[in-house]
Amino acid sequence: MDKSQLEQLRHSAAHLLAAAVVNLWPNTKATIGPSIDNGFYYDFDFANPISEKDLVRIDQKMRELAKSWQGFERLEVSKEEARQRFSDNPYKLELIEDIVKTGEPITLYKSGEFVDLCRGGHIDNPNEALNHFKLLSLAGAYWRGNEKNKMLTRIYGTAFPSKEELEAHLTMLEEAKKRDHKKLGKEMGLFVFSDLVGQGLPLWTPKGTLLRELLDQQIQSLRKKYGYQRVTIPHITKKDLYETSGHWAKFENELFKIITREGHMFAMKPMNCPHHTQIFDSVPRSYKDMPQRYAETTMCYRDEQSGELSGLSRVRCLTQDDAHVFCRKSQIKQEFGYVWDIIETFYSRFGFDLKVRLSLHDPQNMKAYLGVEEDWNNAENSLREIAKERDVEYFEAAGEAAFYGPKIDFMTHDSLGRQWQVATIQLDINMPERFDLNCINEKGERERIVMIHCAIMGSIERFLSVLIEHFAGNFPLWLSPTQIAVLSVSEKQLDYARYIHGVLIDAGIRSQLSDENKSLGAKIRESTLQKVPYMVIIGDKEMASWKPEGENDNQNLIVSVRSHDGKDLGSMSLYEFQDLLKTKIEKYE
Amino acid sequence: MDKSQLEQLRHSAAHLLAAAVVNLWPNTKATIGPSIDNGFYYDFDFANPISEKDLVRIDQKMRELAKSWQGFERLEVSKEEARQRFSDNPYKLELIEDIVKTGEPITLYKSGEFVDLCRGGHIDNPNEALNHFKLLSLAGAYWRGNEKNKMLTRIYGTAFPSKEELEAHLTMLEEAKKRDHKKLGKEMGLFVFSDLVGQGLPLWTPKGTLLRELLDQQIQSLRKKYGYQRVTIPHITKKDLYETSGHWAKFENELFKIITREGHMFAMKPMNCPHHTQIFDSVPRSYKDMPQRYAETTMCYRDEQSGELSGLSRVRCLTQDDAHVFCRKSQIKQEFGYVWDIIETFYSRFGFDLKVRLSLHDPQNMKAYLGVEEDWNNAENSLREIAKERDVEYFEAAGEAAFYGPKIDFMTHDSLGRQWQVATIQLDINMPERFDLNCINEKGERERIVMIHCAIMGSIERFLSVLIEHFAGNFPLWLSPTQIAVLSVSEKQLDYARYIHGVLIDAGIRSQLSDENKSLGAKIRESTLQKVPYMVIIGDKEMASWKPEGENDNQNLIVSVRSHDGKDLGSMSLYEFQDLLKTKIEKYE
Repeated sequence: MDKSQLEQLRHSAAHLLAAAVVNLWPNTKATIGPSIDNGFYYDFDFANPISEKDLVRIDQKMRELAKSWQGFERLEVSKEEARQRFSDNPYKLELIEDIVKTGEPITLYKSGEFVDLCRGGHIDNPNEALNHFKLLSLAGAYWRGNEKNKMLTRIYGTAFPSKEELEAHLTMLEEAKKRDHKKLGKEMGLFVFSDLVGQGLPLWTPKGTLLRELLDQQIQSLRKKYGYQRVTIPHITKKDLYETSGHWAKFENELFKIITREGHMFAMKPMNCPHHTQIFDSVPRSYKDMPQRYAETTMCYRDEQSGELSGLSRVRCLTQDDAHVFCRKSQIKQEFGYVWDIIETFYSRFGFDLKVRLSLHDPQNMKAYLGVEEDWNNAENSLREIAKERDVEYFEAAGEAAFYGPKIDFMTHDSLGRQWQVATIQLDINMPERFDLNCINEKGERERIVMIHCAIMGSIERFLSVLIEHFAGNFPLWLSPTQIAVLSVSEKQLDYARYIHGVLIDAGIRSQLSDENKSLGAKIRESTLQKVPYMVIIGDKEMASWKPEGENDNQNLIVSVRSHDGKDLGSMSLYEFQDLLKTKIEKYE
Repeated sequence: MDKSQLEQLRHSAAHLLAAAVVNLWPNTKATIGPSIDNGFYYDFDFANPISEKDLVRIDQKMRELAKSWQGFERLEVSKEEARQRFSDNPYKLELIEDIVKTGEPITLYKSGEFVDLCRGGHIDNPNEALNHFKLLSLAGAYWRGNEKNKMLTRIYGTAFPSKEELEAHLTMLEEAKKRDHKKLGKEMGLFVFSDLVGQGLPLWTPKGTLLRELLDQQIQSLRKKYGYQRVTIPHITKKDLYETSGHWAKFENELFKIITREGHMFAMKPMNCPHHTQIFDSVPRSYKDMPQRYAETTMCYRDEQSGELSGLSRVRCLTQDDAHVFCRKSQIKQEFGYVWDIIETFYSRFGFDLKVRLSLHDPQNMKAYLGVEEDWNNAENSLREIAKERDVEYFEAAGEAAFYGPKIDFMTHDSLGRQWQVATIQLDINMPERFDLNCINEKGERERIVMIHCAIMGSIERFLSVLIEHFAGNFPLWLSPTQIAVLSVSEKQLDYARYIHGVLIDAGIRSQLSDENKSLGAKIRESTLQKVPYMVIIGDKEMASWKPEGENDNQNLIVSVRSHDGKDLGSMSLYEFQDLLKTKIEKYE
């Protein structure tokens, strides 16, 4: 079944849901019910609130009604008839007036006894095909996503063509729930939200900050090899910068805007490129200075709507591991190659396979882009060449380009099979025009340069949300904020535990000593919840290998080791243990 | 001469300046003329613009007029008389109306033929004492500092009781001009400003960013020893956070305010403490978890007025190397001691001597502070104890406390003898009240904690402005963005130069290879302008020590070394040179 057929199936299931709800509670006002990624929903204005328990009844009613649904009958009606038919439903009336304004025909779709205002897109045989569905959850949702409107009740569901596909999806949802980064982030103490600070603005604890820094250090050390240098910019700017760059016209609604005490208009940066042009352009550049490669890990701000915010996946403050290469046209291929190398190396450290997408402009919608089509075609051809020379599989997607140029996007699948877009390399032929960026070439002439935008993680927040769920919080050793928990069986062995902890710390291992007076079981449970990769257990037997005074040799000191998944690795010398850690860290295991 | 006498001398000089200007250009409207740090100014509305060249004429006229100035005669006048006398000067009329509103007497001061509206505060014998003055510069200044008002002409001058003091000051000014961080920052390529981004918002180049990072790494590694952990917060918050903290009431004018698309009021953070409380308060804390020490180097934003902005000294975006300790009252002494240690170690690395000031509340103005006086007295006593136990000299200053608690401030003098306040440790007894911050103590009870605020550099921007001028850009080796410039006499020796550069880079030295086809003289001039501490000169003689193929021993390779101040250190082995660098870096020389 292709994507559009699946959408028709799910959209039909939404009709069925509405039919069942209105059948059970006739005073309910049905509003809208689209298919979405992985399922569908329908928003209702209930006269009396319902609860999750009611989903069973609705499900039964849906199956009952489906039997008599032979198809979807299209009815085109006049605006008067439409208004008449939905006269007791202000939501549908509002939708009808919107359709009237466009001048398009007003269509209703009837299946069984149920009639809904709808543009169409259904399956032909609901009584046969609408079998493998499940209602999933209830949520509040403002009418038309605007918090000034009434809060409606949204019912989420999913539907598949076969029982097997539905069950596989439900199993995946079950597993995803356990791995939810919002839940794990809290349990592991990585980040918090505060009602006083506001939604979509995570605050990072020491552990979460360490995690962010470990990821960023990987990127920075890879970039350093390719001659990238770090720069630093403020988070705000006068409006003027974005008028020149074109962001004001394209993104005004998403900008956090500031009016200063002197009455000037400033904005918080939603991205870093316009600021970076100002560093590049602060002195004349010779061809000998090219390329200039600027990297900066910095927070960007976007005025997202409250209803859109979710954990780390959608935030108002995102940290980009951003970089911009200012180079000559003749250097595009080399620079794209460097970034591609960095992306491959970085993602391989997590075991991610990458799929490559060439994101091109939509020739039908040229007005969505800056610049002229010929330049776009040239730029896109050079990206095609790069991808071909690299000899990797890739696919092309029209309409997926940024508004300033085409990109190469990298996608991956996590351990639950969900697809994520991760890294991106973007060629920008427009910003250099707008900011009149040049270098002086070998002939002493001004030569227009190009820019390459390349965030490797994209945003640390979103990347971490993927990573936490991919690993279910069990980060590889090199990335774990706490790598080792040293646990003594009782207070008696605390001195040896402290000694071992000290040796590990001195060796640069992030060890944590649990010196509280708790049972070993409690300590193990805590470390497991914290997803610490290895626990070192110190009892009398291990302690016997240690000389509290005098010299100790790591080859003779004994520790017992347990991995986070409960596996007992048995006794080994401290020397062997450190060697094991070193090997795993070096291999990014 | 004490400070208030010096202020009287300078204020008298401002009268003399106004008298001379009005004498030379009778259509000029004199406005206000106070004494300031190191001098005085007077703002005029000239009918025709004057230039720096005119300062000589004004100076001569001042000396001519001073001869007949026997003293300052005080005249108290009615508001009608005052309005009459200044009827052609709208600025003085505005000032008169302000005085009328307060109900205070209106006083004029007459010396020679010149009469000015003035509150008083002059020397007794201008004809004798007003001798050692100098007019320094012209500048534009808005009437009353408000950019909506007319731009006036400000004439700056200085005055001293003796010729020696005046000359010493002028020499210092001359030297300071050469060292101006705005000038050196540009020449050395450390930071830039952009008209599109706006005033007070520096953009940091790769070199400047490296400098910032080197300073911050010092602080972070010192802090790590004392158990500080890094945290990360966004740059914005809902208004609610600052209503709770009290910042909204105290700082509203200086906050950059944002109204979101959904109509909520947000603000950019002017400091980090309220955000950090939300990390501390996100989980219950046991006494065993105390203290919590959070460090973060992050940008803060303040809506400063355009007229107040100056280079890195006063910016709208400042990077604080901030930290907050959340601790029990019983831990205050230990934690203050740790911060004090960090401050002493850090500043000694630049050769700065520190003076200590206990900044206390002003008992006459308790309304300027949060909390009750008894708590203030207790807190101030504990700071006094800490200072006494540390056995250092200190002085007390009432009215210099932060609005939330007393502080220990550290001041230093730079190489030109100018005093700067640098680090600060602040005790905060109010924010924990406002945010209801507690730990559970040994008895299982909630115990109110305290906070300690401790920025070591204060802001990186301001600290760097001081540092650049202190060193005149000649940073010590460990801090120089480029430590070594490798310069070949001609292209012939470029391979050896490249080899030496590679060895230095591998040893972690920030070396820069000049491989352009320029004369050695030009290369040396460039490196000198860039203030690179050492140049390695590679000629035929040096190259003869090198085997282009096969193994080379650093003990046998010869380099010629020259220091940034033009001193020829002669030939030495690469081994000796690296040893010299290592020693200097370790000693922070």
